[in-house]
Amino acid sequence: MAFLDRIRALNNHRPGEFVPWFVGGRRVGRLRPELAALLLRNRNAFVACDAGVALDPALADFASRSAALAEAVAALVVEGRVSHVQGESYPVTAGGREEALCVLDRAAAAQFGIRAFGQHLDGYVRREDGLHLWIGRRSADRLHWPGRLDNLVAGGLPHGITLADNLVKECAEEAGMPADLARSARPASVVTYAQVAAQGFKPDVLYCYDLELPADFVPRCTDGEVEAFHLLPVGEVARRVADTEEFKPNCNLVVLDFLVRHGVVGPDHPEYLDIVSGLHPALDPPM
Amino acid sequence: MAFLDRIRALNNHRPGEFVPWFVGGRRVGRLRPELAALLLRNRNAFVACDAGVALDPALADFASRSAALAEAVAALVVEGRVSHVQGESYPVTAGGREEALCVLDRAAAAQFGIRAFGQHLDGYVRREDGLHLWIGRRSADRLHWPGRLDNLVAGGLPHGITLADNLVKECAEEAGMPADLARSARPASVVTYAQVAAQGFKPDVLYCYDLELPADFVPRCTDGEVEAFHLLPVGEVARRVADTEEFKPNCNLVVLDFLVRHGVVGPDHPEYLDIVSGLHPALDPPM
Repeated sequence: MAFLDRIRALNNHRPGEFVPWFVGGRRVGRLRPELAALLLRNRNAFVACDAGVALDPALADFASRSAALAEAVAALVVEGRVSHVQGESYPVTAGGREEALCVLDRAAAAQFGIRAFGQHLDGYVRREDGLHLWIGRRSADRLHWPGRLDNLVAGGLPHGITLADNLVKECAEEAGMPADLARSARPASVVTYAQVAAQGFKPDVLYCYDLELPADFVPRCTDGEVEAFHLLPVGEVARRVADTEEFKPNCNLVVLDFLVRHGVVGPDHPEYLDIVSGLHPALDPPM
Repeated sequence: MAFLDRIRALNNHRPGEFVPWFVGGRRVGRLRPELAALLLRNRNAFVACDAGVALDPALADFASRSAALAEAVAALVVEGRVSHVQGESYPVTAGGREEALCVLDRAAAAQFGIRAFGQHLDGYVRREDGLHLWIGRRSADRLHWPGRLDNLVAGGLPHGITLADNLVKECAEEAGMPADLARSARPASVVTYAQVAAQGFKPDVLYCYDLELPADFVPRCTDGEVEAFHLLPVGEVARRVADTEEFKPNCNLVVLDFLVRHGVVGPDHPEYLDIVSGLHPALDPPM
């Protein structure tokens, strides 16, 4: 049951737990009830609506909506409800990232329960003794998930940058990879989940890329996020996903999707059907 | 919208359209209301239960349940409600195909709305001028979908045969492929859908395999099911899925899954998220 446990851990929402919030009539996120009440009480930019909370409809364009959210986040930082302002803008959208209605600081994404987009890359090597995956171990000083195992490259997708450019940037920063090599990565899947976390709600979308690496490529972290890289046999990677909690939780799902696509976890696995559908739930779970 | 149209065409059920039926307390299929009423009226083996129709609980083992269903199917053939007896046993299961509670003739699978399992193989060639897929055209005399395009190999999975053995058998019959080559196919995905069809309900499970073929391999149909094979550039295959209805409907989904896994349809596609989740819905849709 271990593979399914990894999926269930990131799909742990229960109906009624959150209050939906809206921008321009579209639902863009979900708030804990206490945060919804606080925003209605203390921030002029939020108003009650039939289905939950709405950003004031008078804020009718991208810039004014984004400014109102930035002001709200700044106040939440002062109150200790958001840890910091990260200075990285995430799209606020009811659909894809290209359809942003405004932006919100990344550090407040879960508190506002907005859909967060990211890119994860599985870097692998075909050797005579079988398929191997490059796996990183996160630095001990990381704010989130220090010391856990990670995909070779993984990063959030800020507003306004293309998928191709962000991937090249992340590949350079996290694995010291030349741009030409990064550009040869192949989009292969998208993994989605809807997680209740300490900070709030995380309905995340992770675009997954495969990159077959030359035998002499050795990743090198240039931004301090990764402590070390290891080239592990795919069976050993599968074992760590199934039997341990060494991986950062959402990286388990990206690895599992790789294992399915490469036939390491196949239709003889008793939970194959639930694993494959569990990696790709429809984006708006009933709440 | 065309890719999504292909998915929606095979996920066209509406709540309340069918009556669930049960074996040993487990829901195994769905019946049109008129067939449910007929079975209750004319066949001693079926009884009404709170949630729908049940095979008589007195039939407590695999053999007696299967015999009762065979008798019911024979009567339905006489009445013209099932076209023929095919002589191929499909598992009747509430879960995977290994958990069969009894068997039912393949020709009556949709009338009884049981989960039907199949294997589809995408055979491809990497050429200097890009990825090419071997595509078959179904013979004009086929009962189902004559003249439509098909995956290189595709077949139903009867009860009791292993996935590996059935795939080797289908690869030999449908594409004249040596067993060694067939065994090198890699399981890569599973596509599911829940379709309302003329005969009834089809909640199907298609295991998808990838097989990279040598440049000199030419498929040859040995069982008359395929009229001709064509090696088409992957972009042309994508175009036919998107813009035409040339493919047998469920083959569209298998090709689409291949296009996603090989990066031909990637995250820049505006419907990417809906395509990927739409290929892998959870198996029991709300009815």
